[in-house]
Parts: sequence; C-alpha cells; structure tokens
Amino acid sequence: MKKSLGAQTLVYPTPVFVVGSYSPDGRPNAMTAAWGGICCSAPPCVAVSIRKARQTYANILEQKAFTVNIPSERYVREADYFGIVSGKRTDKIKAAGLTTTKSELVNAPIIAEFPLVLECRLLHTFELGAHTQFVGEILDVKAEEAMLGKGGGPDIEKVKPLLYAPDDSMGYYAVGKFVARAFSAGRELKK
Amino acid sequence: MKKSLGAQTLVYPTPVFVVGSYSPDGRPNAMTAAWGGICCSAPPCVAVSIRKARQTYANILEQKAFTVNIPSERYVREADYFGIVSGKRTDKIKAAGLTTTKSELVNAPIIAEFPLVLECRLLHTFELGAHTQFVGEILDVKAEEAMLGKGGGPDIEKVKPLLYAPDDSMGYYAVGKFVARAFSAGRELKK
Repeated sequence: MKKSLGAQTLVYPTPVFVVGSYSPDGRPNAMTAAWGGICCSAPPCVAVSIRKARQTYANILEQKAFTVNIPSERYVREADYFGIVSGKRTDKIKAAGLTTTKSELVNAPIIAEFPLVLECRLLHTFELGAHTQFVGEILDVKAEEAMLGKGGGPDIEKVKPLLYAPDDSMGYYAVGKFVARAFSAGRELKK
Repeated sequence: MKKSLGAQTLVYPTPVFVVGSYSPDGRPNAMTAAWGGICCSAPPCVAVSIRKARQTYANILEQKAFTVNIPSERYVREADYFGIVSGKRTDKIKAAGLTTTKSELVNAPIIAEFPLVLECRLLHTFELGAHTQFVGEILDVKAEEAMLGKGGGPDIEKVKPLLYAPDDSMGYYAVGKFVARAFSAGRELKK
C-alpha cells in the first residue's frame, strides 16, 4: 500500500554535479547541483538547473559555457561546500584548496582534482520557475587516466562518484555493488 | 592528467526511471529512461527524455501525464526489460509479471510492485534532437509504507534504488554506504 507524501522533489538517485563557470571578470566558480542529468543523446547534452540568485546563473548566461565536474567520494566535503556557499563574494575554489585549469574548448574552468569533467557549450535556457534549466552540448568528456578501465573509458568503480538522496537523510552516498548488465538482464523476459 | 574521450553522454550517476503512461486506447506502458532528473524545486518538476519512436512518447503527448516509478534492486530484470522492448506491440507490464493501478491525480499508471512513484502532469515539451525532454510537474510522491524511515519520508536504504553507469560496464549498480550529510559536511570549509 502506497502512502501519499505530497508534491516534492524526491527521486533516487540524484547526481552530485559540480558546475564550473567563469564570472565576467574571469574568476572561476564552482556550484554543486543535484538537479540535472543527461537529456539528449544526439547532440549529446546535459542539463543542470540553477537558481537565478546564484553567481553560476549569471556566469553561464554571460559565457554561454559551463563544465560539469564529477567529484570522487573523497571530495565530499568540498562538493558540499560548493553547494552551501555563494560564489558572489567568496573564491570558493581557493577556499576549498582546489585548483582549476581553463577548458580548451569552452570558456569555463575544469576542477583539476576531480576525476571526470564534461565541457559544455550552452544550447538552451529554459525558465521553469524557481530554477532555470541550462542545457549544454557536451563537446568533450575528459577523465583522469588512472580512472580508465579495460575498455578505454572511465570505470565507475575507480571514479567512485557520489550520489545524493533528497530525503530525510540528506545523505551523500557511495556507489554500491554491481547488480546486472543493462540491455542484457531483461532479455530472459523477452518472449 | 586528463585524457580526452570525445563528445559522449557519460556522467555518473544516472537514474533508472521507469516511465509509466497510457496509450490512447488505455493500455498501460512502462519504459526505462536513464536520461532525466529533477529540474525545478517550485513548481516541483522532473524531466525525462524520450525518443520519438517510443510508444511512451506518443502516450505522454496524448495524455499530458506520466509517472516516474523507481524500481528496487530486486526488479533489475524487469527494469532492464522495459528499456529494451518496445511497447508498440507488446504488453510489457504483463509480460514482466507486474501490475498497475491508475493514478487518482493524472491519467497514468502506477507500477504496484515498485516502492516509489512520482505522479506528473506534463508542463513542457522541449525538442532537443534525438530526444524530446518532457518536464512534468510532480503532483504527488507516493511510497510503500514499509519503505518509510523515522522522519516519515522514504529511506533510500530501504527503497534500494538502482543507478546506471553509461560507461563500458553498462552496469546497474546498487546504492552504497552513507558518506556524509549534505549542507553539513562542507561547513568546516566556511571561513
């Protein structure tokens, strides 16, 4: 029997995306967003939703570019900090003890210490209410070489990304055990 | 040192959303989508991206409604099946041995066996390319009572949702250990 819990933003899992952007004066900023995800395969696109009050909002509109940086579990403290402090008055990246390099493809910073980054060119801006959804075309994905698996791509068990549970726990969780392979596990149900 | 991997839809984690919809003749359908996520807090909204060839695409446009059902780990086989078979000619829900009830709020089916569901009214339809993004207003979240924690809301450790890794593993993964509490872990970096 299902119980009604009301209209709320509760879904499992949500990602822990650290959105990188430059302010108009060229200062790198980082903001953590759980509202986002891949939204199109061709062109490859990722969506992130940002409130207007955020420095990141102004930065993306100005630069027409952003990065999505994926922190490893060990950077949970830094990722959380990027979500609770505004970049308007604080150099958050410096305060967190992290460093950035400039993307060669778009005008946005890459967090050097994080294992995976998507470099995005702003394609669409959708006003949804409290949040504005920015859809970025993924021009490249870059990963630390130590995070690559046998197939040549990144290995989630090496990257050790976080996920966020927007429930009473307000918890960041690690990725758990491999359960099954997609496009395979369900084949036995095909008649 | 980061290695370039090319323009691709690679991010961690992605969700395993089973989108429920009715065909024009009232037949329930279920389709698994990893491209989606929460996209706005007020109104509370969730986005799912669907290809035009899917029965779910036609269903959502017709009914202006859908559900997002979250399967538990134990339903990985059924969730995968819903992603690899088209609902155009097959009654997938029946073939998977699952059942549905009709939402009282929107014209869309709820998968009875899954622990969590979002009932959504279609708000926006954004054409992005290969995928169309449907943004639904979350009118209610319903959870199995056995999945609720001390705070009254669902507990991710009871729900045991899946996540998907769109990398060489093509793996469904379980949720792992609790790492830290959000809006708290990063406070020590605040000066």
